[in-house]
Amino acid sequence: MSPEEFRKWGYAMIDWLADYSARVETLPVLSKSAPGDLRKALPLTAPEHSEDFSQIFADIDRLIVPGITHWQSPNFFAYFPANTSGPSILGELLAAGLGVQGMLWATSPACTELETSMLDWLADLCALPNQFKSTGSGGGVLLDSASSATLCALLAAREKATQGQTNWSGLHQQNGNGAPQHTALSPKSKLVAYTSDQAHSSVLKAVRIAGIGETQLRIIPSDSQNRMDVSALNTAVNQDIQEGNQPFFCAATIGTTSSMAVDPIPEISVVCSQHSIWLHVDAAMAGSVALCPEYRHHFAGLDQAQSYTFNPHKWLLTNFDCNCFYVSDRQALISALSILPEYLRTPVSESGEVIDYRDWQIPLGRRFRALKLWFVLRSYGAEKLREYLRGHMQMAKEFAKRVDQSEQFIRVAQVDFSLVCFRHKAGNTFNAKLLAALNASGKLYLSHTQLNGFYTLRLSVGAAQSQMHHIETAWQTILEICQSLEQ
Amino acid sequence: MSPEEFRKWGYAMIDWLADYSARVETLPVLSKSAPGDLRKALPLTAPEHSEDFSQIFADIDRLIVPGITHWQSPNFFAYFPANTSGPSILGELLAAGLGVQGMLWATSPACTELETSMLDWLADLCALPNQFKSTGSGGGVLLDSASSATLCALLAAREKATQGQTNWSGLHQQNGNGAPQHTALSPKSKLVAYTSDQAHSSVLKAVRIAGIGETQLRIIPSDSQNRMDVSALNTAVNQDIQEGNQPFFCAATIGTTSSMAVDPIPEISVVCSQHSIWLHVDAAMAGSVALCPEYRHHFAGLDQAQSYTFNPHKWLLTNFDCNCFYVSDRQALISALSILPEYLRTPVSESGEVIDYRDWQIPLGRRFRALKLWFVLRSYGAEKLREYLRGHMQMAKEFAKRVDQSEQFIRVAQVDFSLVCFRHKAGNTFNAKLLAALNASGKLYLSHTQLNGFYTLRLSVGAAQSQMHHIETAWQTILEICQSLEQ
Repeated sequence: MSPEEFRKWGYAMIDWLADYSARVETLPVLSKSAPGDLRKALPLTAPEHSEDFSQIFADIDRLIVPGITHWQSPNFFAYFPANTSGPSILGELLAAGLGVQGMLWATSPACTELETSMLDWLADLCALPNQFKSTGSGGGVLLDSASSATLCALLAAREKATQGQTNWSGLHQQNGNGAPQHTALSPKSKLVAYTSDQAHSSVLKAVRIAGIGETQLRIIPSDSQNRMDVSALNTAVNQDIQEGNQPFFCAATIGTTSSMAVDPIPEISVVCSQHSIWLHVDAAMAGSVALCPEYRHHFAGLDQAQSYTFNPHKWLLTNFDCNCFYVSDRQALISALSILPEYLRTPVSESGEVIDYRDWQIPLGRRFRALKLWFVLRSYGAEKLREYLRGHMQMAKEFAKRVDQSEQFIRVAQVDFSLVCFRHKAGNTFNAKLLAALNASGKLYLSHTQLNGFYTLRLSVGAAQSQMHHIETAWQTILEICQSLEQ
Repeated sequence: MSPEEFRKWGYAMIDWLADYSARVETLPVLSKSAPGDLRKALPLTAPEHSEDFSQIFADIDRLIVPGITHWQSPNFFAYFPANTSGPSILGELLAAGLGVQGMLWATSPACTELETSMLDWLADLCALPNQFKSTGSGGGVLLDSASSATLCALLAAREKATQGQTNWSGLHQQNGNGAPQHTALSPKSKLVAYTSDQAHSSVLKAVRIAGIGETQLRIIPSDSQNRMDVSALNTAVNQDIQEGNQPFFCAATIGTTSSMAVDPIPEISVVCSQHSIWLHVDAAMAGSVALCPEYRHHFAGLDQAQSYTFNPHKWLLTNFDCNCFYVSDRQALISALSILPEYLRTPVSESGEVIDYRDWQIPLGRRFRALKLWFVLRSYGAEKLREYLRGHMQMAKEFAKRVDQSEQFIRVAQVDFSLVCFRHKAGNTFNAKLLAALNASGKLYLSHTQLNGFYTLRLSVGAAQSQMHHIETAWQTILEICQSLEQ
């Protein structure tokens, strides 16, 4: 593609995206595709000869758009949002065009240093404790997702608890040849992790990946408000210690996936610090709210956490993927994840003057993700970002009011942030039918969960374009479709 | 940012990138930044108020460009390339603007189905064996990097070898409560993995992450041409079996990082299949070459592999990140990585009619990476891509000729593909000094490795803009700087 063609099709793509953003509201939110629709429409093999870009471009509307579930629609209320914005798109565009790979400081100093700055900026914006800033003992890194952050936290905790022994000799043998002599594990003790029954599935996934095993993850029950029951945690930890196990990791949540419940971090941290358990706090969705001072009480206790994560790609106008992962002790993380073959050695890295972020993550390579955060934080400014978050939370409260005032529906969880959990009084089967009918309408998209045994609908506000009238329409649509099902 | 502003700054960014591409050759390849340069130039905190995008835009040239090591420069010969192209940049732009998250088929059917098609297209283009196509027992997925692919392969192998027991009860206990009864591991046996001393560091990293442990990874020596010594592999496997260990995973390489050596896959696969060892083949860099029929003999034996990976983001004009990961038995991979909480259940997934790629990877969320591959494969066509690859290999051969004809330099590895490994006869210290001086010149960027104990320079051809005259200039620069150091 010549520079002239790139300019031509680049402009066309920018125009297409501006138009898409304007019309996304008119498209069915959940794609009406049937399995195989796109596969059947695509050639079975790649073309032998170059195709003109005009043909490719035309296929975006013809083939892709009908197969898209429109996450940027103002009527997207499913899961958690993954919102994007103009500045963020331009940041991703610039990153793709520069095409740098920031595995080492030397392979693009700006990629590393801008990232460190953005993580520090966000730590200050969110009033995170100092231990998470690069100026102290810890620091932050941009990863693809909170799942990866949780896995990295678990690995750092595993290596800290076993003093590097697991990386060396694995979990299946306690006395490997050449293993460090001062191992923390007695031959029979087993590592044990803790989380609540409301935690994200990535905690269990990380426990499996790291070779800890599902039987070594204690699922602590939650209370009536879906918060981890700390006395149950305390009992479980003590029982494990009595049985000779080694508690080493606890994953708590600020804003659970099902209901955005907030675990009691201060109380959990007391149990953890008593027994030197690594406390990891997952605030994937809710984390952005810490920009607003009036919500910071939900984040109390973070100063006792060893790691913390949240996703600007969910609710801070930065397109997926962009996860912030903070640790209080960067050496613990680096010790767990660093491997240094000859071909990655550079003088400046050996000197210890710089950060090599490859040692803070699972993969080796890394994109220049900090650009889009930089564009977003500067072009909105803290003030507008706070306004934006407050707007969504106000809409959620308005929707909750309608649920509360209705006779057919029950709200089943507190609305601290932007998620409303509710159900029709008619029972699980009806609610499942209602959800299917709502989503099939194309007018809005909700998802569901189970809370206290009940099939529960989730309306999660967070799309960049959502306004109060979309919430109002969503409520009316729910009432209408409900009525049509009751008839 | 209003739609009008997005259009304005979008056009400006497209122009900037077109211009960048034209002038990248004139910029010093390795950034001349000193540690902290960018950090010092950035404000300590995020702005409270919105900044005009013109200010942000101006800072790209002022702050970012001097801190970039220019991976897209035609004089970038370090590591392996991470090349990009117009169509790929536009695909990434579209993905960022659509902002869909393809964790489930339902969350954007086109994101899943286009991905499956692109992986099948590439399998055919590369003449990969049928077991890796979605129409058979296996299939492919797009991940961020070969490191992640190797980890996923190792986890699938671990779970297959232990019949799901490790996910369940971990590696530290062989008889967990509720564990499947028919475990493959005897209480004392340990899982053992194999790779060569030339394998990528991600193999060791994966072995550590998965809780297997470094002592359980047998580093098989390589022969004089840096290929895994199969008789040493055979001996190691037999010794492990005799000692009651369980060989379960072998990572072989087509195109090693240090010298692009090709392990003897057919012979390795005989050892592996004899002992039911999962054979994973990493062709991160060299994999794209399989588009050219005359290079396919390097890929013999893949029909006996359980998994295979290569990176279009290295050498197929698709910007980082874009890794292809293929497995011959998708059920083995899904069994290892799937977790299904209520909030991710969808009727169409439960029916088994569709692929949910979240079960093929470590994170939950995923970008729409297939778009950029689709754009690249269509706008170039197979023919031009083959031409492109052959061009780079021709340049490497030309450079090798110059090394071979010189009296000062020795070539230290075969040039099968696009990498030339060479050193000055003056010894390790001089070669390290030479590399530092070359890179400090800003005229080109090389990296180094150790081969047979010698500090070795690597000239890796693969930047999209590299032409024969850049290779010629690189050689002249090497001679000049060499002479200046000798004086």
